[in-house]
Amino acid sequence: MRAVDIIQKKKEGKIHTKEEIDFLVKGLLDGTVADYQMTAWLMAVYFKGLNEDETAYLTESFINSGDILDFSDISDRVADKHSTGGVGDKVTIVLIPLLAALGVPCAKLSGRGLGYTGGTVDKLESIPGFVCSLKDEDFKEQIKKIGAAISAQTPNLTPADGKIYALRDVTATVDNKSLICASVVSKKIASGANIIVLDVKYGCGAFIKTKEEAKELADLMIRTGARLNKKISAVISSMEQPLGTHIGNSLEIIESIEFLKGNYNKDLYEIVLEIAGYTLILSNLAKDFEDAKNMMDNVIKSGAALEKLKEIIEAQGGNPDVIGDYSLFNVGKNKIEIKAAEDGYVSKLDALLIAKACKLLGAGRDKKGDDIDFGAGCILKKKTGDTVKTGETLLTLYFNDIKDEKKEEAVQLAKCAFEYSKIKPEILSLICK
Amino acid sequence: MRAVDIIQKKKEGKIHTKEEIDFLVKGLLDGTVADYQMTAWLMAVYFKGLNEDETAYLTESFINSGDILDFSDISDRVADKHSTGGVGDKVTIVLIPLLAALGVPCAKLSGRGLGYTGGTVDKLESIPGFVCSLKDEDFKEQIKKIGAAISAQTPNLTPADGKIYALRDVTATVDNKSLICASVVSKKIASGANIIVLDVKYGCGAFIKTKEEAKELADLMIRTGARLNKKISAVISSMEQPLGTHIGNSLEIIESIEFLKGNYNKDLYEIVLEIAGYTLILSNLAKDFEDAKNMMDNVIKSGAALEKLKEIIEAQGGNPDVIGDYSLFNVGKNKIEIKAAEDGYVSKLDALLIAKACKLLGAGRDKKGDDIDFGAGCILKKKTGDTVKTGETLLTLYFNDIKDEKKEEAVQLAKCAFEYSKIKPEILSLICK
Repeated sequence: MRAVDIIQKKKEGKIHTKEEIDFLVKGLLDGTVADYQMTAWLMAVYFKGLNEDETAYLTESFINSGDILDFSDISDRVADKHSTGGVGDKVTIVLIPLLAALGVPCAKLSGRGLGYTGGTVDKLESIPGFVCSLKDEDFKEQIKKIGAAISAQTPNLTPADGKIYALRDVTATVDNKSLICASVVSKKIASGANIIVLDVKYGCGAFIKTKEEAKELADLMIRTGARLNKKISAVISSMEQPLGTHIGNSLEIIESIEFLKGNYNKDLYEIVLEIAGYTLILSNLAKDFEDAKNMMDNVIKSGAALEKLKEIIEAQGGNPDVIGDYSLFNVGKNKIEIKAAEDGYVSKLDALLIAKACKLLGAGRDKKGDDIDFGAGCILKKKTGDTVKTGETLLTLYFNDIKDEKKEEAVQLAKCAFEYSKIKPEILSLICK
Repeated sequence: MRAVDIIQKKKEGKIHTKEEIDFLVKGLLDGTVADYQMTAWLMAVYFKGLNEDETAYLTESFINSGDILDFSDISDRVADKHSTGGVGDKVTIVLIPLLAALGVPCAKLSGRGLGYTGGTVDKLESIPGFVCSLKDEDFKEQIKKIGAAISAQTPNLTPADGKIYALRDVTATVDNKSLICASVVSKKIASGANIIVLDVKYGCGAFIKTKEEAKELADLMIRTGARLNKKISAVISSMEQPLGTHIGNSLEIIESIEFLKGNYNKDLYEIVLEIAGYTLILSNLAKDFEDAKNMMDNVIKSGAALEKLKEIIEAQGGNPDVIGDYSLFNVGKNKIEIKAAEDGYVSKLDALLIAKACKLLGAGRDKKGDDIDFGAGCILKKKTGDTVKTGETLLTLYFNDIKDEKKEEAVQLAKCAFEYSKIKPEILSLICK
């Protein structure tokens, strides 16, 4: 078998065997298939696609390329969730303590951000002292002890996907649903959880642009999971405007803490409830979504969920005092308020432009290893559908020492992110049922 | 500018600027663009194509990536030819001494073979002592002194094409006409010749399969040459059956010597005349093809062309006695004759199967650096359209020490290469006018 023949085959739109997919994936790791052959194949896949068989073969090949975690000695209902990514997406940080407080063990592996803002790992690291690089045994031990842990993915888990993802990122081959599916599903299965809920986001702030594509991807991931004997549920949600009100690493942790104190934005609540609901129902802890909602509200009211977050922070070396004292966070020492230019309603709030503005202020990174300023970001005062008066504050930008031209560009982008209308705009539902 | 954005642009079918093409080509050489980015782009080019502007930019970028030879102090009519490659193609070895004997300085840069049989450089190296790796100054000096030199391309000439060609070869991205055009035309222009004649081959023994594709490629190369102020002519010729009668490195040199002694196969004569004719007319030495034919016949009859080959062999360190004594060549010590299975006519003689048979006997290489057995190959006794009687010899295979299974497979392929008919088959013309 030769890599060049496999590439030729896909170029001609032919279907691969399991052996051919395994050859490519194993070969990439052992050096018999070159990076430059893999990327030519990835581009051919972009144009010719993979069918469901091939997608499942690729997913399985990724899983078998490294370690597979096993929590069967802890529980048969260990939960994990995954979001395809969006702006202001702090669902994990709220959801994990919530579920753990309700008795669902959570084994959450997260990533760093390579897009406009940080990933969950970056956000958590804005808590002074918080450590995300847990060893497999410590990760497991913590779940046993306090019912939840959030760790950066270790290089031994689906290493083939790790390598291929890095190649896709720099060769414009990210946006193919089979490749996305294999990457996400393999990671989730290798992480060892039994209950997997995916949050598939679409819209201007997500890399999937339409609801239809998100549905296709969600269906493919559910079917691929089923072929590999793993039950996966998926929520499809809109990412036209940022999720919640805070964007940026420290700011998103602050919003998450506020959520668990009962002060939540309704969009964020809605999506947390949806994912928690699926998880609780699949765990046989709730009989329906109403039941799940009551359970969730109870652990927020009682303070049990907030207490669980504190336990997770303490267990992972972070300073738990941040919960009562936000001044312990790096929050940008400089502020600029963006004011409304018109009277009326906010008819559009562009998530991508807000994300780009935050990145300019220092909240994201261009390439692996770049520094992030945890204090950079923004707080939204108005969201789509809200009424506004000229001169009213739309959002506040937070930043530390940055160049004037970056600051000016960020202000410009933040202004452009808002559109206005005289009549109340129709608000589309956040979650696609 | 970022490579990933350029790849994305081509993936979407958009048109590149000259700056973008230059960025990719220069970046590949200086390391700012990774091999794996180039191959993803090449695959996107395969699917989305390059237009004529982009093809010319790529060609120019290849030319400017290295040295450009200059023969203006020797003559303003230095000739070069290039064949897109075929089975039994020894045109260069006959043509260069012929043209040089007629007063056309020839600066021929050739390659090694990576396909089924050796390239021109390999063939010439079957002459004991013959050296093809000439330094630029020695190459030029020899042209000044004896009017012709044939050298392997130096790494300093179009190095970007060299690197990209190697990547295309292992990523199934060879068969795109813009990429082929840029590769061929850049090399020919950087080689410094003023009169360039291309032999574009199509058919089962060439990598271009149809006459239409060959015409398109020839047109594109002529127009690309014109955009870069270089007059290029092209001959389109069929490669359904091998060219001439001898295939294999030593054997093709022997056929070339025989040609210059006046003992030629008519197909080979026809194509040599066509290319020589164009060159002599463009050099203002012949007024038309009839005139060119007379000139060519004269230097064959007089022995001047054979004498010129001898001079070239001597100048490049080879043993000139090979001209009178073929036993000085490595010619396979073992022979197998393949006999006709039917009475009638040869209706087909498959060049590709013959090439594969010769490769099995040792005449070609799998990868760069592999050894070639100069003595391996075959001599055809029958070609398409010839009458045959059952048991008559169709061809003789020549080989040294090889494994029995390889020999048996070669015999099988050689037998399959022939098809028979009871009625005289229609013979299509070798050259497409």
